[in-house]
Amino acid sequence: MKLLFSGVTTPKGFKASGISCGIKKDNKLDLALLYSTNICQCAGVYTKNIVKGHSLVLASEYAKKGQAQAVFINSGNANACVGPKGIDDAKIITEVVANKLKIIPKHVLTGSTGVIGYKLPMDKIKKGIIKAANSLSETGGASASKAIMTTDTYTKEFAVKLMINDMEVFIGGMAKGSGMIMPNMATMISILTTDANISHSLLQKALVSAINQSFNKISVDGDTSVCDMTVILANGQSKCQPIKEKTKEYNEFFNGLLEVCQQLSKMIARDGEGATKLIEINIKNAFTLNDAELAAKAIANSPLVKTAFFGEDANWGRLLTAAGYSGAKFNPDKTTIKIGHLVLFDKGVAIPFNEIEASEILQRKDIFVTVDFGEGNYEDTVWTCDFSYDYIKINAHYRT
Amino acid sequence: MKLLFSGVTTPKGFKASGISCGIKKDNKLDLALLYSTNICQCAGVYTKNIVKGHSLVLASEYAKKGQAQAVFINSGNANACVGPKGIDDAKIITEVVANKLKIIPKHVLTGSTGVIGYKLPMDKIKKGIIKAANSLSETGGASASKAIMTTDTYTKEFAVKLMINDMEVFIGGMAKGSGMIMPNMATMISILTTDANISHSLLQKALVSAINQSFNKISVDGDTSVCDMTVILANGQSKCQPIKEKTKEYNEFFNGLLEVCQQLSKMIARDGEGATKLIEINIKNAFTLNDAELAAKAIANSPLVKTAFFGEDANWGRLLTAAGYSGAKFNPDKTTIKIGHLVLFDKGVAIPFNEIEASEILQRKDIFVTVDFGEGNYEDTVWTCDFSYDYIKINAHYRT
Repeated sequence: MKLLFSGVTTPKGFKASGISCGIKKDNKLDLALLYSTNICQCAGVYTKNIVKGHSLVLASEYAKKGQAQAVFINSGNANACVGPKGIDDAKIITEVVANKLKIIPKHVLTGSTGVIGYKLPMDKIKKGIIKAANSLSETGGASASKAIMTTDTYTKEFAVKLMINDMEVFIGGMAKGSGMIMPNMATMISILTTDANISHSLLQKALVSAINQSFNKISVDGDTSVCDMTVILANGQSKCQPIKEKTKEYNEFFNGLLEVCQQLSKMIARDGEGATKLIEINIKNAFTLNDAELAAKAIANSPLVKTAFFGEDANWGRLLTAAGYSGAKFNPDKTTIKIGHLVLFDKGVAIPFNEIEASEILQRKDIFVTVDFGEGNYEDTVWTCDFSYDYIKINAHYRT
Repeated sequence: MKLLFSGVTTPKGFKASGISCGIKKDNKLDLALLYSTNICQCAGVYTKNIVKGHSLVLASEYAKKGQAQAVFINSGNANACVGPKGIDDAKIITEVVANKLKIIPKHVLTGSTGVIGYKLPMDKIKKGIIKAANSLSETGGASASKAIMTTDTYTKEFAVKLMINDMEVFIGGMAKGSGMIMPNMATMISILTTDANISHSLLQKALVSAINQSFNKISVDGDTSVCDMTVILANGQSKCQPIKEKTKEYNEFFNGLLEVCQQLSKMIARDGEGATKLIEINIKNAFTLNDAELAAKAIANSPLVKTAFFGEDANWGRLLTAAGYSGAKFNPDKTTIKIGHLVLFDKGVAIPFNEIEASEILQRKDIFVTVDFGEGNYEDTVWTCDFSYDYIKINAHYRT
């Protein structure tokens, strides 16, 4: 597998664009269009929030058939909570995109992100679709990744090159965060592409499995948006043989997909609103997988843990406390806690540590935390970020 | 019922003191002692965190027998996570207190709050116990309430006077917060006293029920400490007849206890670390009590909701989003959201509102939020606070 720092237009046959239609101020990019020169197999995972954005509802309905040829995302104004007009607007978008690209409206998947409760400015968007279609290019992935951003501070793209039966196969992706991220949800917008030859049912299976080990393992603030989704389009243009279940070709493909999803996930966690650090929480030797997951999630979501990391404070007490109320079963007297290689808490007892050494570790941009329950054989890993003054600043005034 | 702005020494026969023994800097009060001139019936509720402080473990063991005569709390250095010495130190404290007061060690309940993982400075504490015992007075409640504070910005005391069968009965209390507060736990230290005549088993029943409608309904940051507890001592000195279950006397007593607990709870929420506002979240017309509780708790714990209130932003979208991922069943298209009297979201649709009016409501110190699911008959109320820059400041550097 070769890692590539490019995105959705890396696989063969995909074009993309990112343009400004005037939803965001200062001509910032706010419309992203992705197009495949042939009809693709597709799969998707959507928010589990009981409240769902209108564009997302339409996309999930259209994607059910397993075929798609384009993805259209607008940012700045989410199409959610505006009543029946919301679904009508999403349908109009698919029709305008389809008409311009000469494809079928039901092959256009729509997404939308930004402030909820305001109707989309459809005149701007309709004109924007024409502009976006005219701007499509095989190097447009970077612009598209910029056009889906909201409070993100940088674009998130990643791709891999695989060799499957001596044929080059590419998987590319882009994502946006950066607040409202929590485990166990399709919790941001992520668009993935591949030129692999794979059925939509097997693609769905691979996607769900990859997401469970990547996007569902990151946490910024425990909140989950109503518009968040991940979709993948496979156009088969690599000319590799169809990938079948339980083969080494499938494993190869799955590992590539997982790599892209994990890289994008870490970019999202690192770019959490106001984040200054990426924190990897490793739970070791838990009695059950559920215990490991509960503890990892509680630690990753604890505002007290996250503020301690912002303050570069080796506060193992908050890690232990969060594990303690997580619902995970463990014995504190068998538990060991490390930050980096430094042991802070050893089998139930706080131990003296070198504050200078701790401080040196905590000043890094990447911090590795290990909570070892000392009994059992299960583990889990979650990525999160610290909680800074800027998190408050960004979120206290985002709407207005 | 008469509301009194006093505390644990308001009921007859109780003395208290708060002194400085040198755990905290600058001679700040750090030891609180409470004593009844006769043996009391007692009841208690303790943290549900799997990790438990050593002093708390001993107190919960001693309180099981239903009798106590003194409560001793130190602040600044919590007796937790220090290995077997922790329980030994707690025992020594009960012995020194009992010896000085000429009571039984098992009648001394110990609590401890502050940074965990550091052994108690026992020499300072032993000397402090003597000083605290010598300072006991019938007006010492205020000093004691000061001595249990950690990051609290003000003391929390409340009391009521009841008339039960024409006899005066008092209930008093003190509490400390102010981070690490979350529903469904005995989540801070609170000491309650009464001169009512009531058995420890009925007292336990009343306490659990009152806590479920007060301390378990507040949320500051979703974290739960290992040292948090509520205990109540009843010394019977009011000379009222024994209070029996299912009588109007019991109802009278319970309502008084609930009033004290709710007043202390709101003081804790309002004094959440860095808080600038008290926010009351009311869920109305839910299908089940569980649905109402899940939604109220998710909203109260959402960092995005709490930062929006800090920013005085009428962001109904975050309220709806939090309810949506809470696990509560409801129909967004039947849901209405109000801040104060102002409707922001009406049966599934965002509606235009007067921003000046919204801003006027949001600038208040007490904010009332209503999320009405529009179907069903269950409701729940939770108190929380906003999330400010000061929350980050306090928690990023608390340990050091």
